[in-house]
Amino acid sequence: MPIYNAPLADMRFILNEVFNAEQFWQANENLAHVDAATAEAILEEMAKFAQNITLPLNRTGDEEGAQFSNGQVTTPAGFKQAFKQYAEGGWIGLAADEEWGGQGMPKMLTVLADEMLFATNPSFMLYPLLSVGAGMALNSYASQQQKQTYLPKIYSGEWSGTMCLTEPHAGTDLGIIKTKAEPNADGSYNITGTKIFITGGDHDLADNIIHLVLAKTPNAPAGSRGISLFIVPKFLVNEDGSVGERNTAGPGSIEHKMGIKASATCVMNFDAAKGFLVGKENEGLAAMFVMMNYERLSMGIQGLGASEFAYQNAAQYATDRLQGRSVTGVKSPNQPADSILVHGDVRRMLLNARANNEASRAFAVYVGQQLDITKFSTDPEAVAQANNRVALLTPIAKAYLTDTAFQATIDAQMCFGGHGYIREWGMEQCVRDLRIAQIYEGTNGVQAQDLIGRKTIKCGGEYIDEYLAEIRDFANELDSSLNFIKDATLDVVTEVEMVTHFILESAKENPEFSNAAAIDYLHAVGLLSFTYMFAKMASAAQGKSGEFYQNKLSLAHYFIQRVLPDLTSRILKIKAGSDVIMNFSEDYFTNQG
Amino acid sequence: MPIYNAPLADMRFILNEVFNAEQFWQANENLAHVDAATAEAILEEMAKFAQNITLPLNRTGDEEGAQFSNGQVTTPAGFKQAFKQYAEGGWIGLAADEEWGGQGMPKMLTVLADEMLFATNPSFMLYPLLSVGAGMALNSYASQQQKQTYLPKIYSGEWSGTMCLTEPHAGTDLGIIKTKAEPNADGSYNITGTKIFITGGDHDLADNIIHLVLAKTPNAPAGSRGISLFIVPKFLVNEDGSVGERNTAGPGSIEHKMGIKASATCVMNFDAAKGFLVGKENEGLAAMFVMMNYERLSMGIQGLGASEFAYQNAAQYATDRLQGRSVTGVKSPNQPADSILVHGDVRRMLLNARANNEASRAFAVYVGQQLDITKFSTDPEAVAQANNRVALLTPIAKAYLTDTAFQATIDAQMCFGGHGYIREWGMEQCVRDLRIAQIYEGTNGVQAQDLIGRKTIKCGGEYIDEYLAEIRDFANELDSSLNFIKDATLDVVTEVEMVTHFILESAKENPEFSNAAAIDYLHAVGLLSFTYMFAKMASAAQGKSGEFYQNKLSLAHYFIQRVLPDLTSRILKIKAGSDVIMNFSEDYFTNQG
Repeated sequence: MPIYNAPLADMRFILNEVFNAEQFWQANENLAHVDAATAEAILEEMAKFAQNITLPLNRTGDEEGAQFSNGQVTTPAGFKQAFKQYAEGGWIGLAADEEWGGQGMPKMLTVLADEMLFATNPSFMLYPLLSVGAGMALNSYASQQQKQTYLPKIYSGEWSGTMCLTEPHAGTDLGIIKTKAEPNADGSYNITGTKIFITGGDHDLADNIIHLVLAKTPNAPAGSRGISLFIVPKFLVNEDGSVGERNTAGPGSIEHKMGIKASATCVMNFDAAKGFLVGKENEGLAAMFVMMNYERLSMGIQGLGASEFAYQNAAQYATDRLQGRSVTGVKSPNQPADSILVHGDVRRMLLNARANNEASRAFAVYVGQQLDITKFSTDPEAVAQANNRVALLTPIAKAYLTDTAFQATIDAQMCFGGHGYIREWGMEQCVRDLRIAQIYEGTNGVQAQDLIGRKTIKCGGEYIDEYLAEIRDFANELDSSLNFIKDATLDVVTEVEMVTHFILESAKENPEFSNAAAIDYLHAVGLLSFTYMFAKMASAAQGKSGEFYQNKLSLAHYFIQRVLPDLTSRILKIKAGSDVIMNFSEDYFTNQG
Repeated sequence: MPIYNAPLADMRFILNEVFNAEQFWQANENLAHVDAATAEAILEEMAKFAQNITLPLNRTGDEEGAQFSNGQVTTPAGFKQAFKQYAEGGWIGLAADEEWGGQGMPKMLTVLADEMLFATNPSFMLYPLLSVGAGMALNSYASQQQKQTYLPKIYSGEWSGTMCLTEPHAGTDLGIIKTKAEPNADGSYNITGTKIFITGGDHDLADNIIHLVLAKTPNAPAGSRGISLFIVPKFLVNEDGSVGERNTAGPGSIEHKMGIKASATCVMNFDAAKGFLVGKENEGLAAMFVMMNYERLSMGIQGLGASEFAYQNAAQYATDRLQGRSVTGVKSPNQPADSILVHGDVRRMLLNARANNEASRAFAVYVGQQLDITKFSTDPEAVAQANNRVALLTPIAKAYLTDTAFQATIDAQMCFGGHGYIREWGMEQCVRDLRIAQIYEGTNGVQAQDLIGRKTIKCGGEYIDEYLAEIRDFANELDSSLNFIKDATLDVVTEVEMVTHFILESAKENPEFSNAAAIDYLHAVGLLSFTYMFAKMASAAQGKSGEFYQNKLSLAHYFIQRVLPDLTSRILKIKAGSDVIMNFSEDYFTNQG
């Protein structure tokens, strides 16, 4: 049975010592209702929920899976009760506005709560996550009446939400969707089309499901500028707010997937289903993207959660597994063999995962704080700067955190040897469940393209230059006892600065350059970001006594010496350019010649 | 439905043009029965078998899985008929000695046949593979009478074989196994113990199963020097060679695994089962290791097969999938979008996989040739040198080929976007099935330890020095039109030479250095080996006209520019040493502090 102990000590360290969260909250009138004690209580409560409620449902949920029969989805045993408990605990609306029944908590806190849920049961977590995403889009773009009708029910968990974007032929390229919206005389629309990969498209956890559907109205402009957003409830809502007649929107089937099997991924059929326009016609994509920065950060948290879960179990297994002897002499003379922790290669895998967890967690809180500034700050300049930072770092949060986390789960699985391949141990499920996080919400390749294209080349490097300046300023202030990371940080800043300028120049001459360099640039900026986080953590730990702080410094050393060297190869690959990639005919790929 | 077209053109290129196989065979009296026409016929026949018989059983085998009930294993529908057909085709004994019913084919040819089977159905392939492994151990160590009794039946497929090594508490560390062998008056032994992870431990494909079991006799020395090897048949064999009474050896259960679900992985219980000593007491481990070099190369071929299968399907999907437009202008004006092959990042993933396939295939043939020299050559000096080369390269064949192949399957899966996560497309199965190849037959971490320890440090770098000299000589002879790869190859040789000397020096002072550097050194030598293979392929293609040969050179360019740069980071990590890894207390790993 897999274990999970919420990493509260590390969460406290990051919130209180690295980011001085309470000071930040109390200095902002819109966040003055949050203090360290409130944050602590929330984290402790979520730790209990994750350890006691969602963890035990993780393996069973995978084995049972979501089931589809008679046109309806059933979730695995225990999910309904857990969802009820989660909703009653107020968790769905944790970060939502109090006006609609939310608790108004800042993102830099809720990312930590999310981590625990993703660590213990990613399939379960996806149900409320989609509600939160739908709620966010409605909160930004819906009419006051629509908000009143839907938001309180969504945040209370009576109803849930979905995001219906993808169609069989249209994923990344939403401009070519075919779902139609025909206007009715009463101001509503008839929505007709098929959507696929709809998370929580149907289930038995809530009384109603509010689908947010992208569709095209008659005579809408071609491409992405002709897409509108509609509310399409599973059951229409009566004037008094009660659930009314069934809409002609429902699941056609569910997908059989590699993982997150307890999460229902539906094919959704809309057959002249009644829908209600959200915001203005043809502005639907903007409404979707309003919550994208949050959702994509959530996928990064999914990575972090999985990596933490995998690490904890692998570290325990490695401690317990006796096999072979230390090269420096027998360590456990009373045992038939030493723990496999005596082997450097086993430690390497565990330390990679742990370094990933600690840097990812700090980075998630950092990006959460930037999102909080955009939402809560009253200083327009601070908001503008935070918006730039969020724009730049969202692809890192989504793609770099999931790429590194996937490697961490793979390494953790390897620590188990053959047992890592056996279902009962839970490690292979962790790998399978996490794999989707690199794919959905825009593949990591698409994220990389977003970073190098829209977020870097398009703004002439403005966002990354601001970020580099912040990191350089921070590093320059570091105590000389931290020269090992001060120097490394300043070096990385210079390296990334130089390669960014190289990219800006190369892209001018060659439009194909950027896509070919994208993934390596994403990883370069990811390594920069993790170095910055380790510099922040080292700074918070420096001069404090006790093993806890000493270990923070040791892990920073490990990262600089054994992870950061990947930067060099990434930069070499960027500099290799795109010709060696584009110099093949399209036919080449499917021919053996 | 996944596709597979046996890459015969590339196989011919490697055999005939890169390695001049016929010339090599005909120059060796023990291999003079093999010519290019024979090889071609074998490859064509296997291509048909793989495409028509094993490919269609791959998805269904995964869905149905091996089943265990009433103490017996049942294989998925179609496996029994396919195994019969495979056996009747003489495939099990393809590389076995003609004396025992084999076809005496060289390894440099059979690796290509194996690739096709692993590509189309790794679960199926494991059943005959274990027979071949057991046959090889018997061929080297069993008595003449034992060979007569068992080998012809194994190679005909009437019976099958297993290797029973691992126990619940003893995997990598076989020195601590507990299975006991008590001598009987008639010269047989009573074998008692539990073995786990026994591939093909039970099934319904053959009339008898010949288990090769490691066990300890009374008063055997402690550790690995006290292990003996026994034949333990499922059914005892009568004097006339017919199948007799049931032995007390059988499956207790089968494992539920991440992948290779159609391959039965058994817990085997031996309850005073009758066993027969193979070779001498306490020399069992040596008998096992005689076939290890072959088996470990086979795992590399499993990687290659999966990577080729994944590549072909991803390339086809990417060609068919229309999404977005090329940055250099619309490529398919009559379609709603361009093929995703216009995007550099998609090509990068495909080219990584294809470069991996072509280099892995060449490398497998190269190592196969070295194995053939050890087995068939009459020149003692050539045999000695080939033995060194096989010793050095076996960990590369096993671990580097599976590490790179796993990444290739991950990349191929990503080309499918969300569809890559759906079972029906077959890509996620490919990832799950391949994952075990990094783990079993000695984890890749153990392989890395073998390379840097026994194969490098222990012999003072002799094996690697010989290999480097061979590569340097080859590169120096390259035509000046190939300077791009000549220079790169000479550089890599120098880099690996320098880091090897660094390792030899560091290991003298610090016994923990080698394990901490192991995986990076393995990848460094892997990159060296693939560079060598691309140099060989470029040399064979150079000066020849036609797109086929031009593409070989283009892919070599791609490899040098976009894959080889990983070497730099690997070397930096090796040089970082082991202190940053070993400077943590054992408690640290399971504590959050």
